[in-house]
Amino acid sequence: MSSEPLRVAIIGLGTVGTGVTKILQNESERITRRAGRPIRIARVVVKNLQKEREVSLPEDVLIDDVETVIADPDIDVVLQLIGGINPAWDIMWRLVDAGKDIITANKALLCEHGDALFSHAKDKGRCIAFEAAVAGGVPIISTINQSMTANQITSIQAILNGTSNFILTEMLNNNSNYEDVLKQAQELGYAEADPSMDVDGTDAAQKLIILTQLAFGKKIPLESITQQGIDSLELADLTYVQELGYTVKLLAVVRLVGDQLEMHVQPTLVKHHRPLAQVDGPFNMIALEGDAVGKTWYSGPGAGQMATASAVVADLIDVAVGRAQLTFSAMDFWNENVQLKLQPPEENTGRYYLRFNVEDKPHVFADITDILGKHGINLASVIQHEAPEVADSSAGGEAIVPVVVMTHRTSAGRLQAAEAELDRLATLKTPIVRMPVDD
Amino acid sequence: MSSEPLRVAIIGLGTVGTGVTKILQNESERITRRAGRPIRIARVVVKNLQKEREVSLPEDVLIDDVETVIADPDIDVVLQLIGGINPAWDIMWRLVDAGKDIITANKALLCEHGDALFSHAKDKGRCIAFEAAVAGGVPIISTINQSMTANQITSIQAILNGTSNFILTEMLNNNSNYEDVLKQAQELGYAEADPSMDVDGTDAAQKLIILTQLAFGKKIPLESITQQGIDSLELADLTYVQELGYTVKLLAVVRLVGDQLEMHVQPTLVKHHRPLAQVDGPFNMIALEGDAVGKTWYSGPGAGQMATASAVVADLIDVAVGRAQLTFSAMDFWNENVQLKLQPPEENTGRYYLRFNVEDKPHVFADITDILGKHGINLASVIQHEAPEVADSSAGGEAIVPVVVMTHRTSAGRLQAAEAELDRLATLKTPIVRMPVDD
Repeated sequence: MSSEPLRVAIIGLGTVGTGVTKILQNESERITRRAGRPIRIARVVVKNLQKEREVSLPEDVLIDDVETVIADPDIDVVLQLIGGINPAWDIMWRLVDAGKDIITANKALLCEHGDALFSHAKDKGRCIAFEAAVAGGVPIISTINQSMTANQITSIQAILNGTSNFILTEMLNNNSNYEDVLKQAQELGYAEADPSMDVDGTDAAQKLIILTQLAFGKKIPLESITQQGIDSLELADLTYVQELGYTVKLLAVVRLVGDQLEMHVQPTLVKHHRPLAQVDGPFNMIALEGDAVGKTWYSGPGAGQMATASAVVADLIDVAVGRAQLTFSAMDFWNENVQLKLQPPEENTGRYYLRFNVEDKPHVFADITDILGKHGINLASVIQHEAPEVADSSAGGEAIVPVVVMTHRTSAGRLQAAEAELDRLATLKTPIVRMPVDD
Repeated sequence: MSSEPLRVAIIGLGTVGTGVTKILQNESERITRRAGRPIRIARVVVKNLQKEREVSLPEDVLIDDVETVIADPDIDVVLQLIGGINPAWDIMWRLVDAGKDIITANKALLCEHGDALFSHAKDKGRCIAFEAAVAGGVPIISTINQSMTANQITSIQAILNGTSNFILTEMLNNNSNYEDVLKQAQELGYAEADPSMDVDGTDAAQKLIILTQLAFGKKIPLESITQQGIDSLELADLTYVQELGYTVKLLAVVRLVGDQLEMHVQPTLVKHHRPLAQVDGPFNMIALEGDAVGKTWYSGPGAGQMATASAVVADLIDVAVGRAQLTFSAMDFWNENVQLKLQPPEENTGRYYLRFNVEDKPHVFADITDILGKHGINLASVIQHEAPEVADSSAGGEAIVPVVVMTHRTSAGRLQAAEAELDRLATLKTPIVRMPVDD
């Protein structure tokens, strides 16, 4: 065992940085033994030196100037734990220039600039480890990079946003509206003050882009995939779906279809008995399929201070042991399938759940099925409930009733065309709700 | 990329060896890219050279003499894929002596002699990789050895025997007896001709011993832990348990209780909604808890040709990349907690399911509760069904009725003492059925 300590700098002492500091301070004997050498926190960079902290650090360790870290040749590894693109992007690039190995949890940055950063680090002979960037405490990065190397991965279906999953679970369990549950989630710390990136599907899509690049060697731009969040879902839909034998989950999906990648992030109907349907609350789950291994599942806390810190510290031990460097340089499949293309979203096929709010008049249902039929969309099942709303005098006294249909297999393109025509029906009172079904 | 091929020998061309050969032959481009160098199958050792094989190998590659492999200095890595203790134990030892790195799936050998073999390999500067030895395609070894290194693992609860899980699932789904389902499992290839090691809990216990040594650094002898299989379970118990809101699973459990390890392999009642209750058929699942990460779950195929081959080939790529060697030498926690002791089985505490088959006479139930009460065991709930059997004239015309009780928390020792007394009741017609409850 080398007795020379590994000198580490932490940039950002937010939730995760604090968790990492706790583990390194409180479990130093354990971490030293597993890393094969002591790990010393040499510097911690924060914005505000005066702010009260959960952890105590020597005065010369806590600094507010990132340049000191970049310029210090004695710092071996940097835990870059600030989020967002700027200034993280510039800091990361210059840390690589300065010859540091980097550990990060910044999914937005890796989604956007992972390929450039990784090439830069390879050129400089450094490594970047990022287990904490996707699914927090669930080791999905090392599973793809190491455990599944015998396989061509054929599909990943995942619950990657704990906030959305918590909200969906609570809406159904408490018969509550989206807005009420969001407020509760914010109070409990499961949702941020500005939750938009979580609930609109962006966070899950960023993580999906990273997993796709690892599993399929192809960088797909975030803006080119279908992305729908849970922020427009109504309790009624969750209830109808339940009745049909499914649960709604915000699924991030990538699937190899010939030489194309089908990719999307959408609220999706999952059969009750499937593992993905059974993940409740703020947990994540990844269902990964490979051509040799078949189907496997990984689940656990996708966020949270200590779960994410667990992943960061595991990466740090991997760097200390020398494993992260080997994994990083062997991560050549990051660019191996450049011939793969994104499947145009309109060619995505599957079954769909549709809800129409219509006037309770003769022929309304016939009009809908007629238009769907003209576009080659066949119905597998229909639910029509009693009118939930009082007659609306402005609508001529007719009640508004929800009509829920499940289609047979069709394409997103056909459905869009049919919807454009359906939208023009005078009897249709609100936008059509559409969700794909996981088959 | 080194163009020098890695020269590999395979010992044993059974199910797993054949699967590994298929991947290496059919996906050589993929494997070469990920390993950073070509992997060449130099030798394959079989017992019978004449036997027809699913894979074709050059005549000079297929041999029936293991000594050739041991003596060949050009062979870098050996995939030791024969099961059982002998002759695998001797072969492994001599392979290490000869300076080979070894990959194995032999859980029986690692359970019994893993510590000695691992020290020997460390002394010789070689490595042993064994992802395939536990849970087949589910990467639980690398999860413990690498991904969870920031944690003190606090508990592992696992379904580690797919055969048993398949049988339990089918018994309940088809309302069938153990014997009938076992026969069906054998026909489907989910159970071997001699299934005793699977159904009596030995296989799960061997895997638990390996996981315990990795997670807690302590070698516990197989024979010292409580082990009960599924071979004595009756359909009736599965049904009563279902009614109580639980599912029976053969759980392998290790849990840190103070400075002791609670360990056992037993059919166990798991609440319906828990992840472990929802694993059906021949799948495995490991629920792993760590002091930083919290609860995580891993599931997938625990056996099968290609799933197990996937794990073996991943280990082979790890050896080619150099990662396996680092992991093996960092695996020092294999011996870190020597002060931990096995909790004496009679001190295991928990709630229990008990079934008594008794004569339908006055006072019988009072007699039972009286004895349980005397031993400090309180009842949480009771089910008494209609008599399922016709009155037995030899029993004086009294019907035999099952009485099912769920106890409050107690110790295995108290229960044993109570059972010894209960067994003497004349009204008790068959041995008491006892299963712990997972709380």
